[in-house]
Formats: sequence, C-alpha cells, structure tokens
Amino acid sequence: MAQKQDVKIGLLGAGTVGLQVARILHDQQQELAARAGANLVLSAVAVRDTSKVREGLDQSLLTTDIDAVINSADLVIELMGGLEPARSAMLKALEAGKTVVTGNKAVLAQYGPELYETAARTDANLYFEAAVAGAVPVVYGLRESLTGDRINKVLGIVNGTTNYILDQMTTHGWSYEQALHQAQELGYAEADPSADVGGRDAAAKCAILASLAFHTRVNLEDVPVKGITEVSAQDIKQATESGYAVKLLARAERVIVEGEEQIALGVEPTLVPQSHPLASITGPYNAIVLETEFAGRLMFYGAGAGGAPTASAVLSDVVAGANHLVSGGHAPRESVYAALPICEPGRVETRRQVRLEVADRIEMMAEIAKIYAVGGVSIASLTQSPTETVPTEATLVISTHRAQNSQHDGITAALAKSPIVHKIASEMSIE
Amino acid sequence: MAQKQDVKIGLLGAGTVGLQVARILHDQQQELAARAGANLVLSAVAVRDTSKVREGLDQSLLTTDIDAVINSADLVIELMGGLEPARSAMLKALEAGKTVVTGNKAVLAQYGPELYETAARTDANLYFEAAVAGAVPVVYGLRESLTGDRINKVLGIVNGTTNYILDQMTTHGWSYEQALHQAQELGYAEADPSADVGGRDAAAKCAILASLAFHTRVNLEDVPVKGITEVSAQDIKQATESGYAVKLLARAERVIVEGEEQIALGVEPTLVPQSHPLASITGPYNAIVLETEFAGRLMFYGAGAGGAPTASAVLSDVVAGANHLVSGGHAPRESVYAALPICEPGRVETRRQVRLEVADRIEMMAEIAKIYAVGGVSIASLTQSPTETVPTEATLVISTHRAQNSQHDGITAALAKSPIVHKIASEMSIE
Repeated sequence: MAQKQDVKIGLLGAGTVGLQVARILHDQQQELAARAGANLVLSAVAVRDTSKVREGLDQSLLTTDIDAVINSADLVIELMGGLEPARSAMLKALEAGKTVVTGNKAVLAQYGPELYETAARTDANLYFEAAVAGAVPVVYGLRESLTGDRINKVLGIVNGTTNYILDQMTTHGWSYEQALHQAQELGYAEADPSADVGGRDAAAKCAILASLAFHTRVNLEDVPVKGITEVSAQDIKQATESGYAVKLLARAERVIVEGEEQIALGVEPTLVPQSHPLASITGPYNAIVLETEFAGRLMFYGAGAGGAPTASAVLSDVVAGANHLVSGGHAPRESVYAALPICEPGRVETRRQVRLEVADRIEMMAEIAKIYAVGGVSIASLTQSPTETVPTEATLVISTHRAQNSQHDGITAALAKSPIVHKIASEMSIE
Repeated sequence: MAQKQDVKIGLLGAGTVGLQVARILHDQQQELAARAGANLVLSAVAVRDTSKVREGLDQSLLTTDIDAVINSADLVIELMGGLEPARSAMLKALEAGKTVVTGNKAVLAQYGPELYETAARTDANLYFEAAVAGAVPVVYGLRESLTGDRINKVLGIVNGTTNYILDQMTTHGWSYEQALHQAQELGYAEADPSADVGGRDAAAKCAILASLAFHTRVNLEDVPVKGITEVSAQDIKQATESGYAVKLLARAERVIVEGEEQIALGVEPTLVPQSHPLASITGPYNAIVLETEFAGRLMFYGAGAGGAPTASAVLSDVVAGANHLVSGGHAPRESVYAALPICEPGRVETRRQVRLEVADRIEMMAEIAKIYAVGGVSIASLTQSPTETVPTEATLVISTHRAQNSQHDGITAALAKSPIVHKIASEMSIE
C-alpha cells in the first residue's frame, strides 16, 4: 500500500471537545487515516495555560501562541468558542489558505459572510458541522445531500438545555426555576444559562440553518428571539391538556409576501401538536425537520451537545477536509444566489394561543370576541373555565387562525387595555 | 458572472422517477445550475418504447439505444431498475469514465464490488443515495458525514410497503391479507408484492448500509431474511399488549465473537419496545437509527419511496456529481479496509419471544421450563392465559434473554417435538 500523505492538524482550544478530539485522533489513528486517505497528525495545540495537565494530551504540543499553531498546520480546528480571538484566528488561517473546521456557531452567525468570503477568495475550505445540533448531520444534509431538492421550511429543536428543561417541567409539573436548577445540577445547563434559556444559542443556529437552506445571507440579528424564561408550569399544563407539547422551536420558512418570496424567521416557545414528530423529542436531544418540495418531510435526530457527539462532528469535518487536501475537491462554497429578503417580523403569519384571566361577567365573551373582530384575527377555538382561586374570575384560552404577528400584537395591546381582562397569563405560537 | 460549463446528462429509463427527474431538471434549471456550478443539460433518454407519449418530456430526446445515451453524456442516471441491462449499462458508463447516479439497490447489493472497482480503476464517480430510503440522506450520512465516528449498529425500517402493512394491521386489527390488499389498492404495494413482503428489498438495503457502515463488502446473500407474510393479527395484538410494536427491521451490528470483531446481519419482523424511536414510525415511512461510538444514537426519518422523494435523492447526487466534474474532487470511494467477517447467522445473539399453544396440564410449565434449561436459554418472562376457543389449551408467551440463534432454534425444535406443545404460533426477535 502506498505511503499516505500527512495532514498536519493544529488545534485551537483544549476544553472538553478539544481534548476528546485529540484523544480520538490518537486512538483511532488507523481507521481515520483509512477514511481520510491521509495520516492525521496533531502538530500543535493552542491553550491559555500550558502548565495545566491535560490527560491524554502530549504536553509538548501545547503553546499559547495561536499564530504558531496556525502556521504549523494544514488544517486548523477552532474550538475556543466565543467571538474573539476565534474569529481572527479563523480569518488568519483561511487567509493563509488553510482548511478550517469549527463548531463556533456564535462566530458563524455573526461573522459568517466574512469567513465565507475569505475562504472563497483564498480557495480555502471551511467546515462547521459541529456548529448546529452536534453530530446530527444537518449541516451536511443542507450543504451537500439535499442540493437537488428545494427546502421550504426548517423547524428545529436545536438547543438541548431548553428541551431538557421544558421536558422536565412537562413530566414533573415543575416550575421553570425548579427544572433549570436540576438541569444545572446534572450539567445540562451552565451556571450562567442565559444564552440557552434566552434563546440566543438557538437563534445563532437558526441563522446558520436558514442561510444554508435558502441560499441567502441570514444573520443573528435577523432572527426574532423569545426564550423560555417566562414559560410557567401552568402554560405547560394547559398545553398538555389541549394536546400540545411546548418546545423552543427555531423556524425558518419560505413565505410569499405580496407576491414576493421571503424568509420568515423566529425562535420562540411554541405549541407543537402531539402528533408532530418534534413533539416526542424529549430530554437534551436535538431534532430538525426539513420540509422540502420533493422529498417531503425529513427529520434528523440525535444528541445536540456534549463532548463526544461534538467531537464526532468535528472529526467528520476533519476527515472530509483532509481528504479534500490530499485528493482534490473542496467544501461547498457559501451559496447566496437566492438572496431572499427577510420577512419583517410583524408580517410573519402564525397561529397563536392566548390564556387570559378575565372578569366572569355576562358580557365578557362578547367584549373579547369584539376585540378579535376589530383586530381582524379569526378565533379558531375558545375555552372558558372558572379560575381556581378567584371566584369572580374565569380563565379563557383562545386559539386563533393564522394572522400576521403585528395583528396578534394589536389584539394583545387591546386585551391589555380592556377592563375585563385582568391578566394576559400567556401567549404562544401554535405550529 | 462567468458562463457556466454544461454537463450533459443521459437518462436511462423514464418511469415515474425518471420522468420526475427530467421534469425537475427542466423546471428548476437555474437553481440547480447555481448549486451545481454547471448547467445540467438533459441530452438523451433511453426508453423501451419511443412512441409512447410522456408528458413534459421532449420526444426528440428519446431513443432505444442505451449505448448512444451513455456515449453522449458526461453523467448517466440509471433508473431502469432490475439487474440487466442496468448492470451492464452502468459498467459501460463507468468504464468510459462517466459519472453514474443510480437508485438501483438490487444491482448494488449484488454487483456492488464490480461497480466500485470499475469506478476506482477508471477514476469515475458512482452515487447511489436513492438506493436506500429514498431522499432520507443516510447514504450521505454514512459515506460522508459520519466518517469521523465509528458506527456500531444500523437498525432500520427501510421498506415502506411492509411498514404500512404492519401499521394498518396494528391500527385496525386487520389480517396480513386485508392490510396487503388495502396497500395494493392505495398503491403502497405492487401487484406482485413479493420483493417487499418477503424482505428481499430490505435485505438489499441492509447489505448496502452494512457495507458503508462497516467498511466491509457485504452482499445480499450475507443477509438472512424473513419477511412479514407469516405475521398474524394475533401476533400484533400480543405485541401491542406486551408494549411492543412489530416492525420489519434491517439490522447490521458490530459484534464480538470469540474475541473477533464480526458483523451480525438480518432482516426480520422484530418486536420493538414502544419507547424506541423506531416504534413510532408509522405509515409508509422509512427511518434509520445509527448507533455510533461518539455521536451516540442518531435517527434519520422520511419518505422512503415514491417518485418525488426518489427524484430528490437522484438530483442531489446529480448536483454533487456535476459539481465534481466541473470543480474537481470525487465521490467517496468504496472503502473496504475493515473487511470484517460476517457472523454466522446461527451465532448471532438475539432475544426471542415465542407464543405457544399448549396442553393445559399441571406438569406443563415444568416441561417447558426444562426444555429451555436443557437448551441453555434463559427465560426472561412467561405469561400463561387460557386459549379462547379450546378449554383444555393454554396460550404461553415466553420472552428470553439473549442467546445465539442456533440455541433458540434448538429450543424451537425441542418444543415442536414435545407432546405438550400443540402449536408454535409465532416466534419473533426482540430489539
């Protein structure tokens, strides 16, 4: 057998995922070489503190000098996280024509175009399977394997932390705070959980998926975000009773607005009918549903985070990148030929469910119905039940037909002003 | 913008999928060109009868001359189905260095190595996403996007016809014959359903998936097959009552036999616990679960057949193939470096559930237990209930722990000989 070429790999960052990547590169050397058609040789590892002992990692490879790691490598794996110095390091590597593999959704969602342009200009390759849904190969799916189809909608549970929290609230009837606390104890949520529970992490992934699906530049700021911090035990109970699961969904959809094709985007807690494949995704898992013109509905499911699954995604990209280095071809280039406009959030159409605490008076229903009629939003169903604690109050759950978000918001404003409405207890979109 | 190169496409076969492919090539010309980086030009179509009018297909492209189509094309799409002349045509095209896209699982499962070797020798590219599970990108997943991981197990519902039939039997309590009849009426089963219901179609896909997952040559004959024709309404009822769904599963698993790594294979009706993600796959859908070393459990789900989904898979391969033709790189080569031995079917370990009709006599239980003890198979659970029609009979449902299939078969033989056992009503593996 012919001697295989070496591909020198520089690793930036040696946290949980980085260490795992280094370990697999070492342990599975031969299998990886057989698949890549090249020997994958870890040549240097950039860390903040070289004195810290990292089990299974050759101490002599460590350096604090990011540039030196980039210069010594054919292929750079960026696993530092955060915006800087990750962004600059990737730009430098791409400028030098090096292959870059990253799992950094924050940089991609914010500075993706800059990275893509640099890669295209220097004919370098950029891979990022690990940036969305861990090892679930949805980036490959969109970038490479569904290129003969036309994606109409991407709907995903792309944040395991929030899915775990919502799942625990559903199973145990817990409050958000109780479920968050438990998720933190078990390591499913970070000490500062704000990027996850606030929806920003999901929004970054939404932007990346939308870019790939619709061949259009989509940035983090294009995605309206609502996190799960205001979802109450009562909301979940109500949802379960009406046959829904509450999921933090990232949505990107091709819509027609006044005859023009646009992209509607959003991340928010959503009522998902129990019969929908995403309703049964429990625990810290991720799942992405693609609705396509020809293939119909496809779903990808798996672990969305964690050291090993993320390392799996990184290594797949490394194998692909190394293979391209030694036998030609390249990663798919950023494809923005469609350049669809982003639909203004207020014009995005959704169905909505609102739960109100209202004065239990005879004219109440008529008043509420009038607010919807004036606002031009059609009611699909309306359920009234006595409020448990206050005898003069009733709880009203209203589900609407599709309407523009601005119309829904108009209704909400009108409801808030009505003396009959004591409280708008919750508001959620319905999938 | 620079003028794009043309890639000439020859289509072999213009049935449902072929026509759909031709239509999409025409209707989505610009989008496909943008993604492929080349104009995809349909240059000729080989059919058996050129006089038949095919809507949406330019009559002047039709010919009965397969060789002429191959010669005129850069990329050949084979959609004739069956073994010959499909095999010869693909070999001829690959010999001439043409790119070949096929959905022909029969040829791949039987003559895959011949095709792969020819492609490697002439540096031609062979793509076959459509051969397994329609547009569900599991071939891409295994061939390209999970190359950094290690697959331990592939478990799939890869035949939509049988899944539909089993699903209808479960939902309506129908017999196999009733459900088959309905599937035929609705076009989910063919007039001659034997390849589907007999399991051969699933076995071909199992061989293809196993080859990709384990980097080993696996042929159709390596896969022991049992179809669904003997599954009864009673079996399904029994399964449902014990918390299982009956699914025709294709299984390929890395196992250790006497210290050696081997591949265990099989297609058979299997009891799947309701909590398993494959249990909830209903209707004519396909789903494939991959259990990997690092990524854990992944699932791919979608429509496994039908003109549009299959056309989607074909066109994705066409885009990839055209892109490789104009900008370098190639399809993944067949990778058989692992060359694992196939585990002898008798040595494959499974759990099994057996339903018996037995004489309702006081010594019955002891007799049955003795047969299992002598055969060395450990019983996990045993349920006795009176047989509805015969007062002197009882029904016994026995679930075992894991044992080798040869041991299970030994038990079955012993049970068949026992005067206490009136009938072995069913036998199924448990996942």
